[in-house]
Amino acid sequence: MAKQKQQQSETITPMEQDYAAWYQDVVRQGDLAEAAEVVKGCMVIKPHGYAIWEKIQAQLDKRFKETGHKNAYFPLFIPESFIKREAEHVEGFSPELAVVTVAGGKQLEEPLVVRPTSETIIGHFFSKWIGSWRDLPLLINQWANIVRWELRTRLFLRTTEFLWQEGHTAHASHEESLAETLQMLAVYAEFAEQWMAMPVIKGVKTESEKFAGALKSYCIEAMMQNGLALQAGTSHDLGQNFGKAFDVKFQNADKQLEYVWQTSWGVSTRLIGALVMSHSDDRGLVLPPKLAPIHAAIVPIYRKAHEKEAVCAKADALAAELRDAGLAVEVDNREELRPGAKYFHWEQRGVPVRVEIGPRDIKDDAVMIKRRDADDKQKVPMAELTATLTALMETMQADLFAAAKKRLEDNTVLVDSHDDFIAMMEPVTAERGGGKFAMVQWCGSPECEAKLKETKATIRCVPLEDRHGGGGACLVCGKDSPQRVVTGKAY
Amino acid sequence: MAKQKQQQSETITPMEQDYAAWYQDVVRQGDLAEAAEVVKGCMVIKPHGYAIWEKIQAQLDKRFKETGHKNAYFPLFIPESFIKREAEHVEGFSPELAVVTVAGGKQLEEPLVVRPTSETIIGHFFSKWIGSWRDLPLLINQWANIVRWELRTRLFLRTTEFLWQEGHTAHASHEESLAETLQMLAVYAEFAEQWMAMPVIKGVKTESEKFAGALKSYCIEAMMQNGLALQAGTSHDLGQNFGKAFDVKFQNADKQLEYVWQTSWGVSTRLIGALVMSHSDDRGLVLPPKLAPIHAAIVPIYRKAHEKEAVCAKADALAAELRDAGLAVEVDNREELRPGAKYFHWEQRGVPVRVEIGPRDIKDDAVMIKRRDADDKQKVPMAELTATLTALMETMQADLFAAAKKRLEDNTVLVDSHDDFIAMMEPVTAERGGGKFAMVQWCGSPECEAKLKETKATIRCVPLEDRHGGGGACLVCGKDSPQRVVTGKAY
Repeated sequence: MAKQKQQQSETITPMEQDYAAWYQDVVRQGDLAEAAEVVKGCMVIKPHGYAIWEKIQAQLDKRFKETGHKNAYFPLFIPESFIKREAEHVEGFSPELAVVTVAGGKQLEEPLVVRPTSETIIGHFFSKWIGSWRDLPLLINQWANIVRWELRTRLFLRTTEFLWQEGHTAHASHEESLAETLQMLAVYAEFAEQWMAMPVIKGVKTESEKFAGALKSYCIEAMMQNGLALQAGTSHDLGQNFGKAFDVKFQNADKQLEYVWQTSWGVSTRLIGALVMSHSDDRGLVLPPKLAPIHAAIVPIYRKAHEKEAVCAKADALAAELRDAGLAVEVDNREELRPGAKYFHWEQRGVPVRVEIGPRDIKDDAVMIKRRDADDKQKVPMAELTATLTALMETMQADLFAAAKKRLEDNTVLVDSHDDFIAMMEPVTAERGGGKFAMVQWCGSPECEAKLKETKATIRCVPLEDRHGGGGACLVCGKDSPQRVVTGKAY
Repeated sequence: MAKQKQQQSETITPMEQDYAAWYQDVVRQGDLAEAAEVVKGCMVIKPHGYAIWEKIQAQLDKRFKETGHKNAYFPLFIPESFIKREAEHVEGFSPELAVVTVAGGKQLEEPLVVRPTSETIIGHFFSKWIGSWRDLPLLINQWANIVRWELRTRLFLRTTEFLWQEGHTAHASHEESLAETLQMLAVYAEFAEQWMAMPVIKGVKTESEKFAGALKSYCIEAMMQNGLALQAGTSHDLGQNFGKAFDVKFQNADKQLEYVWQTSWGVSTRLIGALVMSHSDDRGLVLPPKLAPIHAAIVPIYRKAHEKEAVCAKADALAAELRDAGLAVEVDNREELRPGAKYFHWEQRGVPVRVEIGPRDIKDDAVMIKRRDADDKQKVPMAELTATLTALMETMQADLFAAAKKRLEDNTVLVDSHDDFIAMMEPVTAERGGGKFAMVQWCGSPECEAKLKETKATIRCVPLEDRHGGGGACLVCGKDSPQRVVTGKAY
């Protein structure tokens, strides 16, 4: 509970007034992270933010292992020549590289790149490890830090260094690698919806938006509260591109040499930004209970010394009971703060429920509870507190998802005229909301995609599930379009 | 279970013949790690090695949290000027730094150092976060990768990049920070002994061996099988050194400004090297059950098709039963390998127990089990298998610790003449064993320490617990010595 020496304003800019400022305020007041102003574009992930990341990690790691993947760790540094071996890859990543040129007091003969992603170095080792079809599939995941030199950064959403996981797998056929790509996309979607309470659209990126070096990039796209799109996770069908660049061959059952078929897939600390912008409000952070590091904060209320003893003892007893039921509970015993300041503190940190207990409550054998996502308080008999809060966690998780889902649906519109599209997506200066997803017919040509991009919007993805009744005429050229695609302004 | 395309020799050099070669062979055949030959001094931690690291992490992380620490994450990059602020720190770390000079296609104005440890960057943020005595103690831990440009590297023991945890705490008094330093040293010692089955000596480093910037460095020292010492963990009493360098002040209860008192403490993937060199043998890796990713490997044995079905079904049923009891079990169904090759495979990977099951065993309602650290097999009724293996895990854990403890005691000798010391510690070309710890009297002067160092030995630590009867005459100068110190050759 460290406080900032130079206290910044504790207020939060209203969302409607300036969404970007609101986001920054919520992250700061939620004690999630702060900009590492001395290292351009980097951030410090503070304990409360890191605790959310640990919860994300634990859930994803479990799913990766259940689907047969094993964790490993590859070097942070990649020889510069490796990055250049795959033509599209080098083009995509060159502008963003941080390069070590001096080490141990000497100029390096070959500069080392700080990994912007690990397909190349892992490809190198796959070529050493894989010899026969019996070595396949090879299913690896890595939890690591990544560096991409970004010009415009924003806490969690886009930082020079970030934390992520990157899965890297090799298979004997394209059928298998494609199945893996889609399986991991489904893992991400299930996690986003069931744990982050964030509805997502599964889709495939266009050629111009795909990962540098992939055959096809699949993604989950989410809608933030201001209607902007956020790419929350990607799963790449790499085909044989990196297999060829790094000579990753295997002998098939017929004793013939073939290149392996690879995949890679990742999500990052960006998910924390997505979480913030899915549920929080003008009072600060709101967290879905399944990812909240603290489920309940108990605030004892008293004026006199003799009250204090009884109230604090009861608060501790209730906390113990709730902890036994699997809830993470904090009792806020700080002497220097009034109850109101404590409410404010836990509210800004997104704790799902607050429990208030005073001398009167002890007499009544009941406590007041306050849901983070509701305005009114509720009186609950102490004997029912554990059952009530346990049920509340499920309700709140479901309610947050339902609200986000409704927002996504309400702000997804069908657009069938290019002029309407331009009017809707015209450049906006502030991110004040008003953003929507426009489902438009697109013929698939890069030319028409470029036309659409003349606004601030891009094609976010071609959804895997067509919920809008099939094909029609391309919004731009009028030629045949197989289905509607998701367009929107994006982070 | 990926195999190396270019199969290296699968044999392991006998320990007695060449301990260093033995170590390398055990790590390779145990599938723990391999040198990343394309990135000087770096390694790839392979899935089996990483699974051990995950077990180490889980246990330590639990202990850190139980003692009130919270995890956070600080930038990988540190401004070069930060490293220079603490005089001893810069002297100690400058020769080992990897430096990013180019990023995003441009020369950086101030080069960024890849963190060799994080006291400086964390000191910077502590100065922002700490204002009053109410903000103290601040108890932070970070799991991260670290880079130190080493000339001579060895897998796990000393690599250019390694994984570790670094605790960083700030306190209101030296009494408190010292208590923290010793508490974390005790956490490391308990983990080393109870989980790694590796006895350690808790002690304090001499001035010349302490961490660059610390007031005092405490350590746990272990003895490897060849008698060499390995520093397995350190806990530093930083005093106010970094507080002064980074202006980390707090207002005390009397409203006066004081510098905080800091600690830092860390263990790294080096522990995996220590684990290998504590228990393994000429047949390969031996792992204490508490840190073994797989507790039992079941090998089905059959010749004919109808046997196969029954044997494999029984193997799966036994595995399910063992898993229900909390054991991690692999059933080795690989078609292409004979049972002997499978025994070899699991033996080299240090799996604590192997279970063999064939048609005859099914008839007998019993299986053969083979402890990794014993030569003979044992027939166990199937109904008793779970209870037997569960008990065996405890026995084996205790036996490995007892053996390591005996080795440490047998190879710790009292030496009271400088000539004997020189004869004992004279330079050896290969690490063939024969190393011992010599407990010698030392007056505490740097001059006498330098004399001792003229051999290949160093003072490993001044033990916190004096088990050798107090003071005497310094081995070198004959002046008063308060107690015996541990000397030995070290990794």
